[in-house]
Amino acid sequence: MAQFSIKDNDVDIVIGALQSDLTSFMNAWKPMFSRYHLIIVKDPELKEDLKIPDGFDAQIFTKADMDKAVGPSLTSQLFSGYSCRYYGYLVSNKKYVISIDDDCIPAKDDKGFQVDAVAQHLFNLAAPATPLFFNTLYDPFCKGADFVRGYPFSMREGVPCALSCGLWLNLADLDAPTQALKPEQRNTRYVDAVLTVPNKALMPLSGINIGFNRELLGPALFPGLKLTKEGKVRWETMEDVFSGMCAKVVCDHLKLGVKTGLPYVWREERGDAVQSLKKDWEGMKLMEDAIPFFESIKLPAEAVNAKECMLELAKLVKERFGAEKNSVLTQAADGMIEWVKLWKKVVVPASN
Amino acid sequence: MAQFSIKDNDVDIVIGALQSDLTSFMNAWKPMFSRYHLIIVKDPELKEDLKIPDGFDAQIFTKADMDKAVGPSLTSQLFSGYSCRYYGYLVSNKKYVISIDDDCIPAKDDKGFQVDAVAQHLFNLAAPATPLFFNTLYDPFCKGADFVRGYPFSMREGVPCALSCGLWLNLADLDAPTQALKPEQRNTRYVDAVLTVPNKALMPLSGINIGFNRELLGPALFPGLKLTKEGKVRWETMEDVFSGMCAKVVCDHLKLGVKTGLPYVWREERGDAVQSLKKDWEGMKLMEDAIPFFESIKLPAEAVNAKECMLELAKLVKERFGAEKNSVLTQAADGMIEWVKLWKKVVVPASN
Repeated sequence: MAQFSIKDNDVDIVIGALQSDLTSFMNAWKPMFSRYHLIIVKDPELKEDLKIPDGFDAQIFTKADMDKAVGPSLTSQLFSGYSCRYYGYLVSNKKYVISIDDDCIPAKDDKGFQVDAVAQHLFNLAAPATPLFFNTLYDPFCKGADFVRGYPFSMREGVPCALSCGLWLNLADLDAPTQALKPEQRNTRYVDAVLTVPNKALMPLSGINIGFNRELLGPALFPGLKLTKEGKVRWETMEDVFSGMCAKVVCDHLKLGVKTGLPYVWREERGDAVQSLKKDWEGMKLMEDAIPFFESIKLPAEAVNAKECMLELAKLVKERFGAEKNSVLTQAADGMIEWVKLWKKVVVPASN
Repeated sequence: MAQFSIKDNDVDIVIGALQSDLTSFMNAWKPMFSRYHLIIVKDPELKEDLKIPDGFDAQIFTKADMDKAVGPSLTSQLFSGYSCRYYGYLVSNKKYVISIDDDCIPAKDDKGFQVDAVAQHLFNLAAPATPLFFNTLYDPFCKGADFVRGYPFSMREGVPCALSCGLWLNLADLDAPTQALKPEQRNTRYVDAVLTVPNKALMPLSGINIGFNRELLGPALFPGLKLTKEGKVRWETMEDVFSGMCAKVVCDHLKLGVKTGLPYVWREERGDAVQSLKKDWEGMKLMEDAIPFFESIKLPAEAVNAKECMLELAKLVKERFGAEKNSVLTQAADGMIEWVKLWKKVVVPASN
């Protein structure tokens, strides 16, 4: 098994604070978080002061910081609710970012040991990805695994991994209709695997528990898709799913890999699925339009980094949906252009 | 969770007998095999008489049966060594076929319970597959699983599953160079998941432990790729890997699904990897030519079943490799045409 390692100071842990009291969340994660620099971004709509326990190297960003750096209009367009974490992605100056929802605590693996989600994300990101041919024994770089018979030798070096999508035990990341239909359903299956999502396959990214190579992919993680009355529970949000589709097509184009599977986190309850049904349906409808589009597009060869890819993607979204009135997707395309502009500036973290 | 079930008499279990004494193999599988009809096909090059214990509804086919049905030339071209099982695929008249190598015994799951590989394959085949969009919680039709937030509703019905590829504990299905480099490596990781291999993604099928819908896919499981001195251990064979690439492109074209993951079987030791190195390399070299070809082809819309797809595939192989002298791939294309001819005939099982 090859060895892969990442230095602690190449990593930022970014937390979007949707609740004001982070004490129990932070204490639960202390063994995994305390050696890293933390960026905590407070939801600009959250009024109460944040409560953060001692013992962390934490840098906090609030609405005042965002307004100063990008202006109040972009703050509300790009960074409200769950999207506040994307401000942390922007102002980080590290190569790698790990981000975990503040209603999650460390999970236990199938042997009862606590999972170090940060270490697993960093391993996923450091080891190559294999999007060009599927390996039936999952990630060939995991301990004890390998490429199976028939896997072409010329593809065994793989490609850089740009995005690691972790999963969730207990409350699975279902949409509101599914959760409302099956209120008692919980995810209890611990699947001990990491795999590369094949080239050209789209997937529903969840932003609950992710790690990514910010240098390679940062600008492609885009927060600007906003539904009417975007909510404060995951099943009301679509920013992460849309962001994931942008990131996947950019990775496919740039020959980068996206992995999914380990690490798991344990998700606590939050919200009422039945109450969320009306809001969520808008997102579901949107996916039906967005997916055929994402499946059909081809980015031009001249786009050689994530910023250029996002500008080309914005252009394609406008060509396809520009004629539709009040299209959420066209508004998102405008947001993409603004987002890339921000990445092109050197944004000086306001609290530094 | 939806219920899926398959009648016992819609199933044949096909065993290729590479060794003459099947007593311990059959007895180990008795709890899973005894309720089904078995087709046991004796490797035409195996001299000794088969030893099969009582208590099975087993039908046996030998070289004499094959010679009578297809002639000695096709018998040796299509059905020697591991490929003898494909004769069973041909003469079965059931909707579903399960096939397991005769050096495998039932595995135990991560909780220590014996795995019913037949039941798991049949569940995989009866439940829809989801090749058009990747579900991060794996097979959404498994107990306790579902489609995750963001999975498009219009794709949740899935497509028929035509092929179920199981995995292996203990001796992993590595190629000879890998096994020779890591003689002590064993696969101990039980991954509790089934997933659909996405549309357009190629994978190295292993024939060790598979189930398939014979009505939908039978003719696409093609035994005719023969390397020089094709061997009697798995790492010397390429027929199943090549067969899997044919099957995958046919499934993608016909909008059928291929699943991989559960069930596991336990593989016993057989063969000497170092001795096999010379033979295996030829197969590895072949894959480097075959994969870009399989990635590039598009079958015509007029091909609406597995037989027609295989004839079109044969045509494309000849167009691409026909000019190369003694090409194993061109010979395989000739074999495909013969294979489809056999499927078009009503082959009456000789022992009936």
